[in-house]
Amino acid sequence: MYPKTKGLCFNHFSSHPLSPARVLFSAFFVARPLHLALLCNSRTKASISPAASSTFVSRTRARCLPHSLLLPQREVTVKNIHCTGAKLAETDANVVEESLPSIPTTSSSSSEEDGEVPSSHLSIGHFKKRLRIADIKGGPKEGLELVGEQMMVRGWVRTCRSQKAFTFLEVNDGSCLSNLQCIIGPEAEGFGMIEAGSISTGASVAINGHLVESQGSKQKVELKASKLQLIGGSDATTYPVQKKKLSREYLRTIAHMRPRTNTFGAVSRVRNALAYATHKFFQDRGFIWVASPIITASDCEGAGEQFCVTTLVPNSTKDSSTPIQKIPSTKEGLLDWSQDFFGRPAFLTVSGQLNAEIYATALSDVYTFGPTFRAENSNTTRHLAEFWMIEPELAFADLKDDMACASTYLQYVVRYILEECKEDMQFFDQWIEKGIIARLNDVAEKDFRQITYTDAVDILLKAKTNFEFPVKWGCDLQSEHERYLTEKVFKGTPLIVTDYPKEIKAFYMRQNDDGKTVAAMDLLVPRVGELIGGSQREERLDVLEKRIEELGLEKASYWWYLDLRRYGTVPHAGFGLGFERLVQFATGIDNIRDAIPFPRTPGSAEF
Amino acid sequence: MYPKTKGLCFNHFSSHPLSPARVLFSAFFVARPLHLALLCNSRTKASISPAASSTFVSRTRARCLPHSLLLPQREVTVKNIHCTGAKLAETDANVVEESLPSIPTTSSSSSEEDGEVPSSHLSIGHFKKRLRIADIKGGPKEGLELVGEQMMVRGWVRTCRSQKAFTFLEVNDGSCLSNLQCIIGPEAEGFGMIEAGSISTGASVAINGHLVESQGSKQKVELKASKLQLIGGSDATTYPVQKKKLSREYLRTIAHMRPRTNTFGAVSRVRNALAYATHKFFQDRGFIWVASPIITASDCEGAGEQFCVTTLVPNSTKDSSTPIQKIPSTKEGLLDWSQDFFGRPAFLTVSGQLNAEIYATALSDVYTFGPTFRAENSNTTRHLAEFWMIEPELAFADLKDDMACASTYLQYVVRYILEECKEDMQFFDQWIEKGIIARLNDVAEKDFRQITYTDAVDILLKAKTNFEFPVKWGCDLQSEHERYLTEKVFKGTPLIVTDYPKEIKAFYMRQNDDGKTVAAMDLLVPRVGELIGGSQREERLDVLEKRIEELGLEKASYWWYLDLRRYGTVPHAGFGLGFERLVQFATGIDNIRDAIPFPRTPGSAEF
Repeated sequence: MYPKTKGLCFNHFSSHPLSPARVLFSAFFVARPLHLALLCNSRTKASISPAASSTFVSRTRARCLPHSLLLPQREVTVKNIHCTGAKLAETDANVVEESLPSIPTTSSSSSEEDGEVPSSHLSIGHFKKRLRIADIKGGPKEGLELVGEQMMVRGWVRTCRSQKAFTFLEVNDGSCLSNLQCIIGPEAEGFGMIEAGSISTGASVAINGHLVESQGSKQKVELKASKLQLIGGSDATTYPVQKKKLSREYLRTIAHMRPRTNTFGAVSRVRNALAYATHKFFQDRGFIWVASPIITASDCEGAGEQFCVTTLVPNSTKDSSTPIQKIPSTKEGLLDWSQDFFGRPAFLTVSGQLNAEIYATALSDVYTFGPTFRAENSNTTRHLAEFWMIEPELAFADLKDDMACASTYLQYVVRYILEECKEDMQFFDQWIEKGIIARLNDVAEKDFRQITYTDAVDILLKAKTNFEFPVKWGCDLQSEHERYLTEKVFKGTPLIVTDYPKEIKAFYMRQNDDGKTVAAMDLLVPRVGELIGGSQREERLDVLEKRIEELGLEKASYWWYLDLRRYGTVPHAGFGLGFERLVQFATGIDNIRDAIPFPRTPGSAEF
Repeated sequence: MYPKTKGLCFNHFSSHPLSPARVLFSAFFVARPLHLALLCNSRTKASISPAASSTFVSRTRARCLPHSLLLPQREVTVKNIHCTGAKLAETDANVVEESLPSIPTTSSSSSEEDGEVPSSHLSIGHFKKRLRIADIKGGPKEGLELVGEQMMVRGWVRTCRSQKAFTFLEVNDGSCLSNLQCIIGPEAEGFGMIEAGSISTGASVAINGHLVESQGSKQKVELKASKLQLIGGSDATTYPVQKKKLSREYLRTIAHMRPRTNTFGAVSRVRNALAYATHKFFQDRGFIWVASPIITASDCEGAGEQFCVTTLVPNSTKDSSTPIQKIPSTKEGLLDWSQDFFGRPAFLTVSGQLNAEIYATALSDVYTFGPTFRAENSNTTRHLAEFWMIEPELAFADLKDDMACASTYLQYVVRYILEECKEDMQFFDQWIEKGIIARLNDVAEKDFRQITYTDAVDILLKAKTNFEFPVKWGCDLQSEHERYLTEKVFKGTPLIVTDYPKEIKAFYMRQNDDGKTVAAMDLLVPRVGELIGGSQREERLDVLEKRIEELGLEKASYWWYLDLRRYGTVPHAGFGLGFERLVQFATGIDNIRDAIPFPRTPGSAEF
């Protein structure tokens, strides 16, 4: 059983779809006068006594207010929270009367004809938003607005410092980077647990108290505790995430604990903001999110080593010893794919683009945002076997539209995190990559530049730098070349290189009139190199068919892809962005394995 | 080469992160006076003459306006759109002067020292939003606001009806269900193509004209064409998506064409709205989206048949003939997992819940939204091998909070589509499931009900219905039982059944004090049955360990899951929702294979 909130708590959050996206702070501060008024008259006590199983009715039901109001949580005493009977129904009694044909005291005493509803079938309470530390410290005055308020916070202890008169507990709940400092004196209920050493780093606690102005310079406010409750202890001698600096390599081995660190908490929040900004950007512009398939037996995927998906080998972790002889085979000693789940070889997708093209040529503007896979044995800081991709596809669009979309998108998400994740970005600026905020501000504000591949090669040939990989027209640009262009030549401005030789690009890219290049583009950024790759797609059936033949691809496999050109073909273009590279770019995190919660790399698929 | 827009077009859309989510219509109508004013003076002509490769500079550069303004697209003549040189830069000439150290006429004539930027490296234009049919017909007056405007629409021909004086083309671009009716008379440029029969169903076209009030009753406005351009033809004799009614079974075989039908276009838009509403709901409430892993070698996933992910069998579609003898094996004739990509057997995830618990016990409130998999040989209308799941996980929360969150969430997304997808929902109400809007309105407005499993069994035992599966305490509720409860007993109100026998639920669910049941809940809805399943998780280390032992599970595999209880454990709860079942529920679509773009089922992984 864990302690219930008494005092300040958000309640009855608006669930109307048209409520503003960032309802939290606005609603909170607008509603405060009302909230305080309600505090005075809504502290009703409702108690449930566990009687015969499944026959509880709350004695007191508080009136239900409209959804859009914030309410303080009512003080509720529940004697047996894990009773098998009905839970407390927080709804208007009148509403219940109306919808229940009869309300006998116990369900067992009522005769239950078809359609008659017994008494214990109560309505579900409204969703209560927990009071988060971000709610307290995230206001314009960093919490000073709330000084004097009674509240309860729940979170995990980061540090516990005992001084003469008081003990300072730093409590974090993951809602923001910074902790709430709680001052616990001997007069506080539960102070004895501190003296007994029960409250250590990693423990979960609930602390009641009132907010006061902080005497320290590190924070504006702190919580003066009246009551301390231990929810879950943490053995200080074995807790894996101690205050001391831990290497990222070590933290990868405890991926279940690393989100409890400052760095990974901040990465998680910024990653989340980037994902949501991505959806917002495209949705606001009328793009439809399309779930491209993960498993595919399609023969026309692009390059990249693929993982096979099968049920011919053991399909449970319980027994992984597989005698080779038990694998279904044909007379000829070949694997018998006809007995596999899909009746043929199936793989994990390497890209959703071809599927996105299907939807773009019906709904005009679409995007995918989902996992993609590469079975490449690359042990680098830039490669994952499983990563998330964003792939917009625009109909009635050419390469210029595509570049404009890509650069506008990137500027949008960068601005979004600079605005919405200020504290986390300052943390990265101070601890992970000095100057990252200035670098991202440049990206958000400066016009992106554009150059052709041919010109880029010219510049690189004239460069006074010795590259590891020599440059000549026709070669693929390496990371060192890309970084030279963005960092040295264009001084940190993102750069789009266009019109690559067709030999180094995919079959579906639109051929330029010169016969040598295709309407492709790569967006390069400082530090990371290629962040986005895109192209206009070949919409001319005859040109596409010829290219498929030239490359020796099996045309029959492309029947549906060619149909898109056969019936109502349109110029269209799109790009792909590896989401974890964006997270690297936006946080300064060195290794892509730290940009995703559970990295999958050769030899590693734990957790 | 495809025609460029002349006339009304959205341009320079705001990319500021704080712009309202639904900027489209609001910005459009607010900005119209400005827009019209600009039309008069911004019709500059810029032309690019193809000179030596990569040396084009636009002769005229229009001034760049602030991002937040809507601009009509400038009329631009590009003689060689697929030149290898720079694309037209639509930016302020002053900005270019400022950031370019020198602007010689051709890049080849400039000496390119490190850091000097050659002339053809231009800035990228702003992202232009295409004028969509939804933009025209989606206003409060269904387009009447725009009567008299010159505009260009691009889309696909749904029907072509020739009358004496005019031809009516119904054009659809997927932005909304309804077509734009275009009237083409003999005076319109390109009318000859209609006479020649080049414009048929499925063809893509661009039509310039001005909007007029419609004489017909089916729509408020129509486009009087001045010019018709064919972008991509469509052979009327072979086009697979003719006007005639096509069976859903047939459409599944042409999944690359079915989004061009009314039904699948509408499903796609509503599915998209449900996904975005899901993100909005959780983001507005401070939840962090967590990418749970797709590939997992973890031994502690729940029930469900899993797909194996491997590189031991061919990892390309090019050669799928695999001699059994070539599969790496040990001396004992067992599959040699040490040679596999991950060095051990790996599988596709069946749930992200355990991973979400990791993040909930660090960041408090999180949710996953990603694909999950079942290798079950279920050929039903309710099962997919690959489907998307939404799994929120709430820290410091019990079953009551969980139920409140689930019901508030469901009401939110239902309200969202009723509000945002009116036209599509009316289509479903008329053609797919009569009365669906009323049913969903009930869900959005009525308080959900709650009943214990024990009470539910009592009701079913007393029911005067002959169930196929007999009921007794301890049995799992079948679809027929669930539907009886929601449809007959609770008359269409969603119902949450709680406190199931522990034997039929997962090991991680929190045990109730009765020793027989667990704090689980299933949310049942009419027609679909179980839509959401959730529980409070067992946070007590000793109880959880005992349960793992009781069930004969291998405790060592659960080391990290148990750590979450060992260090700072907190009461927490969550639920899972199969996204495609939600799409079924919200659209009335019978078969779950029609609720996802590319369904994966036994024997089927095409496209």
